Order: sequence, then C-alpha cells, then structure tokens
Amino acid sequence: MRTIEEMGILAKEASYKTGEMTTGEKNAVLLNAAQALLDNMDSVLAANKADVDAAVAKGITGALIDRLTLNESRIEGMADGLRQVANLKDPVGEFDSMTTLENGLTIGKKRVAMGVIGIIYEARPNVTADAFGLCLKAVNAVILRGGKEAIRSNTAVVEIFRKSLRDSGLDENIVQIVEDTSHETAEKMMRLNGYIDVLIPRGGAGLIRTVVMNSTVPVIETGVGNCHIFVDESAKLDTALDIVINAKTQRPGVCNACESLLVHKNIAEEFIPMVTKALMDKNVEIRGDETFAGMVEGVIPATDADWSTEFIDYIISARVVDSIDEAVEHIRKYGTHHSEAIVTENYTNAQLFLNKVDAAAVYVNASTRFTDGEQFGFGAEIGISTQKLHARGPMGLKELTTTKYIIYGNGQVRK
Amino acid sequence: MRTIEEMGILAKEASYKTGEMTTGEKNAVLLNAAQALLDNMDSVLAANKADVDAAVAKGITGALIDRLTLNESRIEGMADGLRQVANLKDPVGEFDSMTTLENGLTIGKKRVAMGVIGIIYEARPNVTADAFGLCLKAVNAVILRGGKEAIRSNTAVVEIFRKSLRDSGLDENIVQIVEDTSHETAEKMMRLNGYIDVLIPRGGAGLIRTVVMNSTVPVIETGVGNCHIFVDESAKLDTALDIVINAKTQRPGVCNACESLLVHKNIAEEFIPMVTKALMDKNVEIRGDETFAGMVEGVIPATDADWSTEFIDYIISARVVDSIDEAVEHIRKYGTHHSEAIVTENYTNAQLFLNKVDAAAVYVNASTRFTDGEQFGFGAEIGISTQKLHARGPMGLKELTTTKYIIYGNGQVRK
Repeated sequence: MRTIEEMGILAKEASYKTGEMTTGEKNAVLLNAAQALLDNMDSVLAANKADVDAAVAKGITGALIDRLTLNESRIEGMADGLRQVANLKDPVGEFDSMTTLENGLTIGKKRVAMGVIGIIYEARPNVTADAFGLCLKAVNAVILRGGKEAIRSNTAVVEIFRKSLRDSGLDENIVQIVEDTSHETAEKMMRLNGYIDVLIPRGGAGLIRTVVMNSTVPVIETGVGNCHIFVDESAKLDTALDIVINAKTQRPGVCNACESLLVHKNIAEEFIPMVTKALMDKNVEIRGDETFAGMVEGVIPATDADWSTEFIDYIISARVVDSIDEAVEHIRKYGTHHSEAIVTENYTNAQLFLNKVDAAAVYVNASTRFTDGEQFGFGAEIGISTQKLHARGPMGLKELTTTKYIIYGNGQVRK
Repeated sequence: MRTIEEMGILAKEASYKTGEMTTGEKNAVLLNAAQALLDNMDSVLAANKADVDAAVAKGITGALIDRLTLNESRIEGMADGLRQVANLKDPVGEFDSMTTLENGLTIGKKRVAMGVIGIIYEARPNVTADAFGLCLKAVNAVILRGGKEAIRSNTAVVEIFRKSLRDSGLDENIVQIVEDTSHETAEKMMRLNGYIDVLIPRGGAGLIRTVVMNSTVPVIETGVGNCHIFVDESAKLDTALDIVINAKTQRPGVCNACESLLVHKNIAEEFIPMVTKALMDKNVEIRGDETFAGMVEGVIPATDADWSTEFIDYIISARVVDSIDEAVEHIRKYGTHHSEAIVTENYTNAQLFLNKVDAAAVYVNASTRFTDGEQFGFGAEIGISTQKLHARGPMGLKELTTTKYIIYGNGQVRK
C-alpha cells in the first residue's frame, strides 16, 4: 500500500500530464470511464454488498445504510453523471482578460487546472465517481479519501477508472483512493502542502470542522446550512406558507433546506396558526420560542441549542421577532452563511435584507432550496461553499480551476 | 488591553457598519486619515524614534533598521498611498453576472466586502497605512498584527486613524492593532474562525510558513519568490542579458527579483561569459553548477540549498541545462510558483514554457520584475499571492472582496 506522501508525489506528476489534455481527450476519458463502470457493474455491486454486510454487522442502520447502498440504477446514475460532465463546457484555457500595457507587454489571465485536489468524504460511494469526473474535466488529478464503511465500494470504482485510464494510455494516478482509512492518514493528507493544492471536505458538520481545524493545505469549506426564512409583516401569507413548506419539507436532509423560521410579530397571530397546521400536516416537529409556542398547540419549547442546529430532518425551530433588524441580528448570530430568505412585499426591507445578511445566497420571496449548482445553471456541482475565499455558493467546474498570468514581451525591463 | 477574541468581536461588529458605507463616504474617510497622518507627523516620528532606538540597543542593524525607520518623506508617502486608494475604482457593489432563470428567478453575483481581514506582518510601519487603506476601501474591518520592533510606530499610526474615524462619527474599530506582540496572541489570531474571515501574512518566508502551518482561518499565502529566468538556445543574447540584469539587480530585495538563472547548453559558451561579467560588474555573487562554474572565473560552486533559496540579495544561482524540458523540471522542483521567465525566439518553446510552468505569472521575453499590482494596472496591491485559491498573482482591491448571490423571486418553490 502506498503512503499518502507517495500518493501525493504520483498525483502531482499525473497532474502535469492532465494539464496538457485537450477538451476532446478529457471527454473521451469520461465516456470510457462511464462505459467501464457499466461493464463492471458486478464487481462494484459485490464490493458494495461486502461493505453493506459489514456495516449491518456493526449495527449501523437507517439513513447511513441507505446512503452506502448501491444498486444497478445508482451505478447507472454514476455513469450518467460522468457523461453529463463530458457535456459541460470546459472552463480550462479561457482567458478572463487579455490586454496590452503602455510598455507593450501583453498580459492575459488564463484559466488553468488547480493541480491536485483532495476530497475527504463520508460513506457515499457515488461521490467517488462525481469527484473523479469533475476533477478530471478541470484537468486536475484527485486523491479521494472516503469513509471506511465504503472502502470496498470506493476501491472497486476507482480500480475501474484506473484500468480505463491505463487502457487509454494515460496515467492511472489521475485518480487514487486512500485505502488506509485511519484518522492518522487523513490528518497527514490534510498537511500534504506542496502536493495537494486544495482540499474539499464533503459531508456532515463534524467532518467539515475536523478538516478546517486540522488542514494546512488550503480548504474550501462546504455545506453546513442552518438556513432561515424571515416572514416580514408585509408578506403575502400564502406565498410565505408555500415557501416555508417547500424549503422545510421538499427534501429535509440537504444543506439548503430551511431549519429556522422567523415571523414578524405583527402577522404572528394570523400566520402562526396557518404555518403550524401546514408543517404538522407534513409531520414536521416545531421547536418554538415562548411567544410562538404560546399561540398554538403542540409546539415544543426551543432550547438555546436549537437555534444553531442544522436538523436536516423533519424539525424546524421557530421564533417571533419584533422587527427586521431583530431577524437580521438572529441570522448573524446563528446562521452558517449558506442560504437565507425574506418573504416581504416591502421594497426597502427586501433591499435591507439582501444587503445586511452575510450569506452565500440571499433570497427575496423564494425557497432556499434553489441554492444548488444545477438549479443555478452550472450543470454539476462539487459542493456548496460557505466560506468567502475563492468560491462562495454552489461550486461548478470553474471553481475547480485557478488562473495564471501569461505575459508576452519583446525584451521589456522594469525602469 | 483587549484580548484578541474581544478584538475579533469588535471588528465583526464594525464590519457590519462598513458594509453599508458608500464609495463617497469611504473616500472621505481615507482623505481625512491621510490629512490626520500629516497633521500628527510628530507623534509618529517620536514613536518611531523610540522603536529604532530600542532596536539599535538590541543590536539590530542594516536592512531591518532601514525598513523600520520612518521620516517625513516616508510618512508623506503613507498619506499619498491613502489618497491613491481613494482614487481607485471601488469594486464593491459590482455584479459579476445577473440573469433570469427559466423559472423566473433573477439571480445576480454581487461583489461584497470580505468582512474582517487580519494582516500579520513584520517591522515595516508603512504596511499599517497601506493595509488600513485597502481594507477600508473594500469595506472590510482590519486587525493588524505587526512586528514587535515596530509596535510603538504602528500604535501611533493606528491611534491617528482611530481618532480620525471617531471624529467622522464612525466606528473606530474598523482598524485595530494587536498591542500584545507575543507569539501566543498571534497564534490565537490565526485560529479566530468566525471573527476573522481571511488572514494575509506579509513578510519573509519564515513568517509566511508559520501562518500557513498554524492557521485555521483561511489564509492567502503571499510573496516568497524563487524566480527563474531560462535563456533558451534561440534567445537574442542581448535581450537575455538586459532581462537577467534587470530582474536580478534593479531591486534585489523584492519577491519578483530573479534568484536563479538557467542557460541552455548550446549557447552557454557565448552567453555565460557575457552574463557573468555583467552580473559581476553589478557586484552580484554567482553560485553556479559545475558546468557553469567551469566556464568562467570567480563563480562559487552552488550547494543543493542554493537552488531553493530566495536570496533577496546580490546573489544568483546559475545552472546549465540540456533542454527546455530540463529547465521546466528544475523550475517544478525548486520554484515557488511566483514568477518565471523564458527568453527565446522559438515559438513552440515559448508556448510550451507558458503552458508547463505552474506559477502565478509566466513571462516570455520580459523581466520577472513586472509582477506587481501597480505594473499590472491594479493601482495598489496588498501582496502577491503564490497560492491557487481565490487570488493568484498581485492582489488588488478586488481580491479583498468576496461575492454573494442575490436572488429576486416572486414565490418560486422547488419542484
């Protein structure tokens, strides 16, 4: 088994070669890899069965088993994903600008590969194919470190990709999987400066925090979404109701789902019974502040921890606020800078909310569920950045690249 | 004295207010601060004299004392710098894109303030004014942590700015200086996630490495430049000579100066005596590989360490290479991804060098000394990024900002 340092060296070497591939060559690799995945479905399913059996034997249940389990249609989905990436516009080689300075130097900012990307993720084998496809299209080499529960599945998928690369005469180390899933190796990976150019964690809040707090390699923080909807006093209440129900219940297990509802006091008496009934009809548990809980039956008193919890479940925290300023204050205190929405008919308040709320995506009169690479028209996404450096919001192919300045001179020296 | 955590809270609070300032209001603050600096020159000079006296008493000499010392003209330069920043175009509020999706959502990517920026730097008091000006114009609050040798000067300058802010009815905590210059406090600052949005180290390789290796706050790595010039076999030798001499000697103490010369073997016999004489005439010490040293008198044999050293002095390492591929290999092994140049008349080699060399700025037939915000037309710079995330190359005002998605809906929910 290769050490993580050896993997870093091999990945860097491979990235020099991917940097020279044309869009056509990259697309051919993606289509070949998709076909190879379908042709070798049995080996992936067998490896996955061993993973699932081991997880069940360890007493793991529910959503985690569901995320871990592959079947024919999920593998077809992975192959489809690779084909979709082949169809995406290639950002590499675009020039963001090109100009000639007074001294005759012609200077351009060219979009180029990042180099080596590390992805640390949990027990979802489909991330393995997604990450490979997106990274390759952006001509990066990738080192994947998935959860230990999925190691057999991930290894099987990566072996298929590596064989497909070899068969095409390419460097198989364009994609590598970290087979040693110990914490020590993960921590070494987080400190592999010089070999890994950027690390992207994909998973729950705990994983992301571990990567942020332990990495010396630059990290793009993704995903945790404690998203709020503020229903202002001037809101159309039926619109507000639709938005809250959609944002909370259309898919509660994702980061752009609504976790917290803020209601202006002047409409509380009318709106709270409406929204409570609609939420309860969808089996959503409501944890309300004293005012909210006092207005309707069946609301559980919220604890302080509830305001900062990303439930990713059929639970919502709910509070009555005196003003838009109090709503903004609340979001500043408890928000995770992901997606925040106001429902209002008041022009000034809409602008104030857009300006004052510090988040990757800020909405007026729409569901927070739209914060998504596909919805935004990027085609695919590697995650949703909640940090402010490099990328903010859904990250597509372009965010997996960097730029360099290209300067054409004819002997210029500095005076 | 405030703790660093208290400073973080105050800075975050101040950043909410700066975020609402118009360009006109920011420019007024900058001009007032420039005038206040001139009006209070005596207090700055007195504080600086105490710093310099203390440094001399500790046995510090040479370039460090020069960098530490302020005089009337340097303070005027600091004030001028603030006025120049007032004249720069304000990037905040620009939309990188604005479009309407099929479902009627109108989505725009708006350029907004980063929030709170931390700057960790060494004993150059002029950085204090530069950083304040650039950060304020990008509507960020800033926490400055300068070197302990300059603490009296930095505190005096920051006090003038804070008074100027108060006099304008603004939050003085837009700028704060860390008065406790202990390593412990610096390390706490590097881990102030949630309060500091980005940390920018400015200084030597040791400082930058310390910040990169210890920060959990996102860092923009700046500055270390082990820059190469490769003189290809087809180069015009007089052009090559001009470029090497300029890049090495025009200002050797900066990060875009040339530190290493690579000469193609087929022109070595003609070029090496020329370049050696010209460098020696400028008192440059040459540390050459065996082939280089064997061709001329007075060249010191290079050690392995010399290839990876940023001398920032009248010293250059020099080597003969067999091919452009060997030059690229050398740069990949020893370069710091800052600025790299080829001198050539061969079209294919020019393109190959531009494509294969992984650096913030890659030049054909020009001096590496141009990698600079002012030279590139950005007006001013906060540093030169040598990392690949967020910003690469000279960082101007725009790189001190981030973006957020603004979405205008009329009740859209996700299907």
